[in-house]
Amino acid sequence: MSSIYRYSALASRMQPSPIRELFQMIRQPGMISFAGGLPDPSAFPVGPVADCAEVLARDGRRVLQYGASEGYPPLRDCLIEMMSDRLGYEVPPDQLLVTSGSQQGVNLAARVLLDPGDVVIVEAPTYPGTIHSLRNAGARFATIPCDADGMQVDLLPEIVENVETATGLRPKLIYTVPDFSNPSGACMSLERRRLLVAFAAELEIPVFEDDPYGKLRYTGEAFPNLKHIAGGAPQVIYASSFSKVLAPGVRVAWTVATPDLVRAMVLMRQGEDLCTSTVTQALVAEYCRRGHLESHMDKILDVYSGKCAAMQRALVQHLPSGAAHWTEPEGGFFFWLELAKGSSHELFDRAIAEKVAFVPGGAFYPDNDEQIGEVHTGDRFARLCFTFADEESIDEGCRRLGRVLGG
Amino acid sequence: MSSIYRYSALASRMQPSPIRELFQMIRQPGMISFAGGLPDPSAFPVGPVADCAEVLARDGRRVLQYGASEGYPPLRDCLIEMMSDRLGYEVPPDQLLVTSGSQQGVNLAARVLLDPGDVVIVEAPTYPGTIHSLRNAGARFATIPCDADGMQVDLLPEIVENVETATGLRPKLIYTVPDFSNPSGACMSLERRRLLVAFAAELEIPVFEDDPYGKLRYTGEAFPNLKHIAGGAPQVIYASSFSKVLAPGVRVAWTVATPDLVRAMVLMRQGEDLCTSTVTQALVAEYCRRGHLESHMDKILDVYSGKCAAMQRALVQHLPSGAAHWTEPEGGFFFWLELAKGSSHELFDRAIAEKVAFVPGGAFYPDNDEQIGEVHTGDRFARLCFTFADEESIDEGCRRLGRVLGG
Repeated sequence: MSSIYRYSALASRMQPSPIRELFQMIRQPGMISFAGGLPDPSAFPVGPVADCAEVLARDGRRVLQYGASEGYPPLRDCLIEMMSDRLGYEVPPDQLLVTSGSQQGVNLAARVLLDPGDVVIVEAPTYPGTIHSLRNAGARFATIPCDADGMQVDLLPEIVENVETATGLRPKLIYTVPDFSNPSGACMSLERRRLLVAFAAELEIPVFEDDPYGKLRYTGEAFPNLKHIAGGAPQVIYASSFSKVLAPGVRVAWTVATPDLVRAMVLMRQGEDLCTSTVTQALVAEYCRRGHLESHMDKILDVYSGKCAAMQRALVQHLPSGAAHWTEPEGGFFFWLELAKGSSHELFDRAIAEKVAFVPGGAFYPDNDEQIGEVHTGDRFARLCFTFADEESIDEGCRRLGRVLGG
Repeated sequence: MSSIYRYSALASRMQPSPIRELFQMIRQPGMISFAGGLPDPSAFPVGPVADCAEVLARDGRRVLQYGASEGYPPLRDCLIEMMSDRLGYEVPPDQLLVTSGSQQGVNLAARVLLDPGDVVIVEAPTYPGTIHSLRNAGARFATIPCDADGMQVDLLPEIVENVETATGLRPKLIYTVPDFSNPSGACMSLERRRLLVAFAAELEIPVFEDDPYGKLRYTGEAFPNLKHIAGGAPQVIYASSFSKVLAPGVRVAWTVATPDLVRAMVLMRQGEDLCTSTVTQALVAEYCRRGHLESHMDKILDVYSGKCAAMQRALVQHLPSGAAHWTEPEGGFFFWLELAKGSSHELFDRAIAEKVAFVPGGAFYPDNDEQIGEVHTGDRFARLCFTFADEESIDEGCRRLGRVLGG
């Protein structure tokens, strides 16, 4: 009887998310998880957020009603103020869209820009949620390799040319997480940022700059955002989120783009979810208005830099010498280990038996048959999140990983 | 420079929502609006909802974190309990998906079921947000006329046959709001419900039963839901929402479908927005757990039945005799007026000049060139929402409308 459903080609192609399946496997007592890219719940500002719910009592008639697809005005005011510092210009209101997580920003941009078969250039490795959104819009992928300084931007013109030769199509979009990439933790150098912004204009391919982690820098000097370097020019679409700096449960993020693109994304979302919850937007706006965000940032920078250092120490101490290579991240959520030998997928099975979990690198690359040109895979890599576990568990988890790698 | 964006065919086809444009026009001092389908903000349970924010203080570490795409467990428990009464069976957990508004349920179902060019049967008239979601999935439309007893179900086999003849395709889905349709306010008769459930199984075309208004009955006897009549069988996909009975600003709704379909929708949304806000889900769950929903329903049934009666009185009193025909709704949000002559679009312009607003009927039909078979348009109709304005404004607004219709 369930044969009554005839699924779309898109749905028929969809595979269970490898990360989701993995999360089912690691729900075991005693498991230490470096797998999920989750903030530390013990660092959530529970009391202040709960206090901010006073806005519901004060302004409930507005807050409980439908809101504009563009976002709740008091939150938009906070964001425009935040962005003038971050992006170096006063973002005009018609360039701002509040989204339900920045994943929604990626998804809306993908749906308004991509036709099935279009090519998007993504970093190898890149965020799996973005692969999913782009794939749902029918994208094919050209991958651009990364090193400790992020995307190897100098390869871009050649990759674009190869895509054009292979498909007859100019890539429609370049996707990057320049600051503390998920999963690699790498931060794009200033020189490469400038080059990317220039190439994007020259090649007429817009860049989607996804920036959930940029404010989570624990050491070293910050580089300006791509959108800042571009002077706000249209070739950079900028997105950021409260998920990593405040709380993912509020589902509040935003995209900065041209008025045209914002309008198209608004129209698209009116067929999707109409608007982001005014309740959570009001909570976040109130939290910012009361000045809590600055002091909370100080706190989590302290907590996360401690955890980052703890994982660095533990990996150095517990992993067999030469078994893996990595660059200590200067911010964000992740260590990205390159194994000297063997497959991280196979390592994962043995790690689970020792009750420590990570995400095998393969999850961060498009499938081989979705890639145009040189195919990159992540089988030698492993992503370890250091923000979720406590420091003691970080040490013990790395000890277990060391046993697995040595065994 | 903004030519750097090359939009998708889908985005290029998208038109500004007629209703959205209209909302811009009616933002004038002194305007009485029957246009938006909005709940009465003065009836929102502001105090109790604000009190429920205590759950943030109590359970913040969970509530502020990422949640499962399927929904927040305590809310899911409330919904399963609510549904066992409403749908007549205990909904297994794997048949339930929490969504960000029921529009998202429609959108996800459209994306997992429809390929571009597929045909969906919708009521004429129907909810414009659904037309938008289906159109974004590439749908074409066959329309089935409605009368005071809802969809004229007996025409269904013929319409299916005509679609097959014209396109070679079996329609993929039937969309209906059986209880107090937006916009027509009509309630599908019990006989037609039974017939629709039987046809859906026989023709092997699933029905999407969108039920935001079912619990808002002010008079007359309730009919069982289609999903109830079907005994929970797969040919009915059921969706409902807290938007109309509690508050749209929480963006909390749900869909009940087969485990297969729920799984496909979950996979799809992991490329869209990951999950509904755990914060608003926890607020709603707490609100239900404290037993507030029942007493609030009593209150809004009282408020809205009063407003419905007020609009009926005012229309009878102020509209010139014979200028329009309508059936007094037994529930929901809307009156649906059929004009004796002239176009509602042209009437709209004159009404705005008199400072009263409604939505012209054309908004509730797919575009002519999207319709397969007999084309229905709404030019003789007007939708009037009675829930938003206060009773005094309802009277004055209908008086103005009467002037326009008489002039």
